Amino acid sequence: MIRTLGVLISGRGSNLQAIVDAIAAGTLDARVGVVISNRPEAGGLERARRAGIEALCLSHRDYASREEYDRALVAALRQRGVGLVCLAGFMRLLSPVFIEAFPNAILNIHPSLLPAFPGLEAQHQAWAHGVKLAGATVHLVNRDLDAGPIVLQRAVPVLDDDTPERLAERILEQEHRLYPEAIGLVLSGGWTIEGRRFILRNPAIG
Amino acid sequence: MIRTLGVLISGRGSNLQAIVDAIAAGTLDARVGVVISNRPEAGGLERARRAGIEALCLSHRDYASREEYDRALVAALRQRGVGLVCLAGFMRLLSPVFIEAFPNAILNIHPSLLPAFPGLEAQHQAWAHGVKLAGATVHLVNRDLDAGPIVLQRAVPVLDDDTPERLAERILEQEHRLYPEAIGLVLSGGWTIEGRRFILRNPAIG
Repeated sequence: MIRTLGVLISGRGSNLQAIVDAIAAGTLDARVGVVISNRPEAGGLERARRAGIEALCLSHRDYASREEYDRALVAALRQRGVGLVCLAGFMRLLSPVFIEAFPNAILNIHPSLLPAFPGLEAQHQAWAHGVKLAGATVHLVNRDLDAGPIVLQRAVPVLDDDTPERLAERILEQEHRLYPEAIGLVLSGGWTIEGRRFILRNPAIG
Repeated sequence: MIRTLGVLISGRGSNLQAIVDAIAAGTLDARVGVVISNRPEAGGLERARRAGIEALCLSHRDYASREEYDRALVAALRQRGVGLVCLAGFMRLLSPVFIEAFPNAILNIHPSLLPAFPGLEAQHQAWAHGVKLAGATVHLVNRDLDAGPIVLQRAVPVLDDDTPERLAERILEQEHRLYPEAIGLVLSGGWTIEGRRFILRNPAIG
């Protein structure tokens, strides 16, 4: 798999920063070819520029339909030789146009132990449900929201005196470790999908 | 809370054995007052007798309705001074008659990280879904199947070369540690329910 990443963001891009840091530290063998935001005010664009990465804003408001917007995204990523798309707080639903342009080559990170608590505010959902283990999940993106094959998961204990905010912070810390690790695993190429299961062909690679 | 447990089983009762062993080892301060099975052939009845515990079979076939059966169960447990009911592979749905007789005093153990994978064959569901973390949950039983307040959870990693059977075995090992620990926590009494959250009033107790 081509080791050029395209990172899609809508906000401050703290997971983008974790990816950039892992590459700088040599723990992730990849490069970020481009960071694209659908919002011009996203703080992650400035992070990208500071790291010497091309930062592009493609506003969904400039396109007539979701499909047109997604075609523009795909074109921008392909022009830059992106082999793996990493969603990092990208707050847009992707159409089949996008999903099918990068089969098994789009990753997302979600702040819960999926399939528990898909959708928005997963950390708050988990807290209110009273689980004792929350966590984070990196998964391949397919046409079902938050439901593609799971690459990695990590548990985060919920403490008795947690607020939803404190829990979300501890989950975010684990996200920052988990996402670069999962990207490295996917780039290693030594995996296969059986049914819904993402499996390392040679577990020694992991 | 009265430290006399009533354990309900339908099968071999391996979690019953874990409870009996924890009491014998002094890590759980409780006594099992009675073991009740709805099936005469349940291997757990023999385990109970070997441990010097009264083993009772109440066959649901001898009762005209679920409510009548549940009333007989409640009577048998109350006669033996049971303060906390522990479901350990009891394959019967409990009616409100039973649930309301032991408010916040019925525990169940389920082989998944609830709310993921409720219902039957949870370990196989988790395996087929491709999660990387499976686990076990001890929860208080209320009127919603597998959905009462969660007392404790423990994660079990899913390995790339797992079969559903091997995964189920490793989850069961963790169940055997988790259930006695959760029973001890509930018997300690130092907890409260806020919304759906089971919280230790003084986390130092846990």
